Amino acid sequence: MIVDGKHFRSLWWNETRSVLEIIDQTWLPYDFRTIQVVTLQDFADAIREMKVRGAPLIGATAAYGVARAMESDPSDANLDRTWNFLEATRPTAINLKWALNRCRDALLPLPESDRAASALELAHLIADEDVQINKKIGQHGLKIISKIAQRKNNGDPVRILTHCNAGWLATVDWGTATSPIYQAHDMGLNLHVWVDETRPRNQGAITAWELGKHGVPHTYIVDNAGGHLMQHGMVDLVITGTDRTTRCGDVCNKIGTYLKALAAKDNDIPFYVALPSSTVDWTVRNGLSEIPIEERSDAEISNIQGISDAGKLGAVAVTPEGTPVGNPAFDVTPSRLVTGLITERGLCDASETGLLSLFPEFSDTVG
Amino acid sequence: MIVDGKHFRSLWWNETRSVLEIIDQTWLPYDFRTIQVVTLQDFADAIREMKVRGAPLIGATAAYGVARAMESDPSDANLDRTWNFLEATRPTAINLKWALNRCRDALLPLPESDRAASALELAHLIADEDVQINKKIGQHGLKIISKIAQRKNNGDPVRILTHCNAGWLATVDWGTATSPIYQAHDMGLNLHVWVDETRPRNQGAITAWELGKHGVPHTYIVDNAGGHLMQHGMVDLVITGTDRTTRCGDVCNKIGTYLKALAAKDNDIPFYVALPSSTVDWTVRNGLSEIPIEERSDAEISNIQGISDAGKLGAVAVTPEGTPVGNPAFDVTPSRLVTGLITERGLCDASETGLLSLFPEFSDTVG
Repeated sequence: MIVDGKHFRSLWWNETRSVLEIIDQTWLPYDFRTIQVVTLQDFADAIREMKVRGAPLIGATAAYGVARAMESDPSDANLDRTWNFLEATRPTAINLKWALNRCRDALLPLPESDRAASALELAHLIADEDVQINKKIGQHGLKIISKIAQRKNNGDPVRILTHCNAGWLATVDWGTATSPIYQAHDMGLNLHVWVDETRPRNQGAITAWELGKHGVPHTYIVDNAGGHLMQHGMVDLVITGTDRTTRCGDVCNKIGTYLKALAAKDNDIPFYVALPSSTVDWTVRNGLSEIPIEERSDAEISNIQGISDAGKLGAVAVTPEGTPVGNPAFDVTPSRLVTGLITERGLCDASETGLLSLFPEFSDTVG
Repeated sequence: MIVDGKHFRSLWWNETRSVLEIIDQTWLPYDFRTIQVVTLQDFADAIREMKVRGAPLIGATAAYGVARAMESDPSDANLDRTWNFLEATRPTAINLKWALNRCRDALLPLPESDRAASALELAHLIADEDVQINKKIGQHGLKIISKIAQRKNNGDPVRILTHCNAGWLATVDWGTATSPIYQAHDMGLNLHVWVDETRPRNQGAITAWELGKHGVPHTYIVDNAGGHLMQHGMVDLVITGTDRTTRCGDVCNKIGTYLKALAAKDNDIPFYVALPSSTVDWTVRNGLSEIPIEERSDAEISNIQGISDAGKLGAVAVTPEGTPVGNPAFDVTPSRLVTGLITERGLCDASETGLLSLFPEFSDTVG
């Protein structure tokens, strides 16, 4: 999307130097820096340290990582090693596994001499496909926003709440939850976005940055505030992304999503989840009992990053020294709280029947 | 309660210098500082800037403020002026109004010459009454914890989630939501407290500080995490405080309380609210439509206070420059989500019938 008047993707291949370039998102929303990702260790660091974030972008980055690894050593052994090395960086991200499997399946049958070029071509394809998929998600989600806009006789804005950053920076472009928003805005619909801060990592600040750069009106709120806004009729629609969706429509997304879904249900507000079908784990039915939840580091909770009075990037400790902290990074929103799913093939119920009606090719996958 | 082995209240009268001393809570949980509150402006600042926080402590502080004002000018006009001046500092805090009304009603009939001494005596009484009330709240709330503890055959801890700081630092001593916790801990029950961070002001850090100083096991979590913990059977009980309770049992408390109540309901976890009856507004029935919600400053959201790497108290900006923010400070939890109220006179349903069964003297108050 647009940054300072220029169109960007979140990653792009530098043909001249034959390296991947990314926006280093650990500096956002304070500084817009791009970096080159060169060694396999760089790729693993970029994923683990969340220089790239979001399921689709992690997948595309991993694909470029495989391409990089094939360049120096295209052997089966190195393909396996690379798969294991990159997969271990973010165990909850189903899209990471999906991209790595796709690369391995495509490359294994090829002679070693073809693997480097094919792997790079496949990484390009995965990136481009992501852009197309998100664009389609936006087109389908746009219908929901348009319908609400039509009900507003007086041109009042459609008020949309979102959690975390399922924006273009979490994908290659468009974003998932934000794609309907960007498309609605670009076609001139009047919108206002409530942006959840999303502690502990405050990804809402990145969503606010994205929306601000693209010109979409928005207000940043703490995670505690959404229920109150819904009670007072100030939210028309909730759209979030998902890191992993079960075959039956349970949604594993950033911690706190479940609380917003409860509030939406309690106030009769539609709660939609936007997802590329690659984030569906067709082998899992019950999100609550079957999806392991990543526990992240204490420091994410006890220290908060930002810009100091002196204008420097730094962190402050917010808890008393030695305070024990807990940091589950995701939660599961049961399908009963999800009004519908927005996929690249259209809208469907958050259920096995709904998902299979759009993706019948997975009917026989054992779940 | 206990700080570094010594018993403290959150405010106390310095007889020698004839001034009020308080713990300046804006330094907590990083530094334990006590200050003297001298002029009426000091009192207003202490309340507005949240050097003292929490309904009961604000009420007691205001009473000492009236005593201070009566010392220099015990006229009716100054009593009115003081009432208006202090009442304007925190419009949502019903307890502030309650304490100011009590002072005015007691002092107006007295000759001016008696007012200074009587006002001070009354402030002492209000402070001591608060301690007694909270102690009783703890004794009644203890029954709920004991019952859960009895169900745990193996001595596993009773896991209690709390939001904001309804601790002893928000009262004169004991706290409201924490009083049952301190009493259960002091009698040797095995407890573990989940402490909500409570953005934007992170009062959870103060709760963690309190519990840590008193020796109660606890874990600090972000506001987003509570629902996930409840889904996974890791919470046995929720106890929060309240800033204002309606005659029908609706609870206006720190923003985000409603979301935890929804999650407790969804997971069949008892959700109790601890309150001194002075926080009941008998004239209000419907919390959602009748209680105005304080909008606090943008800076509370966009900047987060803490201790820098250099060990200094400071703040970092977490939002991109110019990001619009919204900061509703409270929300209303409808009575249907509240399992019960814990008052100084016992437990009751969160309903008009429940409250009036304990406080029949308010049956005729128009609500």
